[in-house]
Amino acid sequence: MKKLFVVGIGTGNPEHLSMQAIAALNRTDVIFIPTKGEEKSALAAIRTTICERYISRAYALVEYPISARNEAIGDYTQRVLDWHDLIAQSYVEMFAKAPEDATGALLVWGDPGLYDSTLRILASVKAKTDLAFTVEVIPGITAIAALTAAFAIPLNTIGNPVTITTGRKLAAGWPEGADTVVVMLDGKKTYASIDPTGLHIYWAAYAGMDNQILVEGPLADVRDQISSTRDAARARHGWIMDIYLLRRT
Amino acid sequence: MKKLFVVGIGTGNPEHLSMQAIAALNRTDVIFIPTKGEEKSALAAIRTTICERYISRAYALVEYPISARNEAIGDYTQRVLDWHDLIAQSYVEMFAKAPEDATGALLVWGDPGLYDSTLRILASVKAKTDLAFTVEVIPGITAIAALTAAFAIPLNTIGNPVTITTGRKLAAGWPEGADTVVVMLDGKKTYASIDPTGLHIYWAAYAGMDNQILVEGPLADVRDQISSTRDAARARHGWIMDIYLLRRT
Repeated sequence: MKKLFVVGIGTGNPEHLSMQAIAALNRTDVIFIPTKGEEKSALAAIRTTICERYISRAYALVEYPISARNEAIGDYTQRVLDWHDLIAQSYVEMFAKAPEDATGALLVWGDPGLYDSTLRILASVKAKTDLAFTVEVIPGITAIAALTAAFAIPLNTIGNPVTITTGRKLAAGWPEGADTVVVMLDGKKTYASIDPTGLHIYWAAYAGMDNQILVEGPLADVRDQISSTRDAARARHGWIMDIYLLRRT
Repeated sequence: MKKLFVVGIGTGNPEHLSMQAIAALNRTDVIFIPTKGEEKSALAAIRTTICERYISRAYALVEYPISARNEAIGDYTQRVLDWHDLIAQSYVEMFAKAPEDATGALLVWGDPGLYDSTLRILASVKAKTDLAFTVEVIPGITAIAALTAAFAIPLNTIGNPVTITTGRKLAAGWPEGADTVVVMLDGKKTYASIDPTGLHIYWAAYAGMDNQILVEGPLADVRDQISSTRDAARARHGWIMDIYLLRRT
């Protein structure tokens, strides 16, 4: 494989694809599609839909399984690194099988830079093997942009910083001095366990998709509604992606 | 005017337009194009190019001037609010002139949520007048995504927060506990005046555009190069948009 596009596909709405992303896909010979656990069918289907809708040339689809993280590894960073090693092995096997002159593509949810490890894993593949492909990244619509667009709100207050963080980090404390905090990767409903005083929440599940769900209000007033909405949506769809913005009022 | 699209157009590369943005523009009757100071010709030209390239129906282009901020107002927030009031007045006049059933569009650089006040100004227009248009936001490629794509790097380190801030705020101190800081709206080369110890910088001007310029390295080693590159680019183009990421190493 000569070249690999890492294409941001936005947050599950095929209309999020940029002209640049579509042009890249139409210069691609092999598209690598991950399949994992319960999210498998829905997420793989969105990637397949994107390919079918926008690519007007012949291409190969190569599916690869993504194993679950090993929850027996206590240290969070080590657990993630270990998981990345497994994905890197899949990459090496797939890339080695691709034709020498081929251009490949990985379709990454949202934007490849934001809480996604594809670029980090590719750097380790290149460091550890003699695979010599080049990487070109196509930026995508982030879940943050999809969230603020859905509510038609600015991300930041005038001239002030924004902290993007994870549920895990938020649980450890409100970021010093922040008035706007965006929380991603929160599978544990951390919004419901922090002090809600003076906080307004804007919560979205499946942001930007047809089945988008939005709840906003003072955190103390709506956190229970968010939790029950989240549980019901997850049960109905078999998977959930959500994100929220907390603002000091 | 019945409806207003606020369309994220990405960072000056017409290929950043999403399918959703193009569909919205093709449902628009009136497109409002701001013109301001020295940036006028280049930025207005990019917006006009986007309209010409992607819109396949008849539409009206309405230009409106944006006055400069009144630097005589000492307080930063007050200066910005005052400036927003002037823009709001332009909006009210333009919107009132549009046909009653018309759909309008504002084309916003990057994403309408990120360090852009269009949505804030529209909220005040709706609060202060009886104009009853609805607002629909189309998310765009952010300068942050264009920056990390250009360098093919992840925005965050594994599981850690990211702080998005301004040159003004960075000058007041490094954000508590942060290992990744993205700086926008820095017209004063704040990167050159902070303690560079242990910091790596990824700097981009015109990120994502054909004339994109990239410099990266240990901050102490490359800050002078960034400053001279920035000065030369600004002189050559008449305007500059730049952004950078600082990472603790």
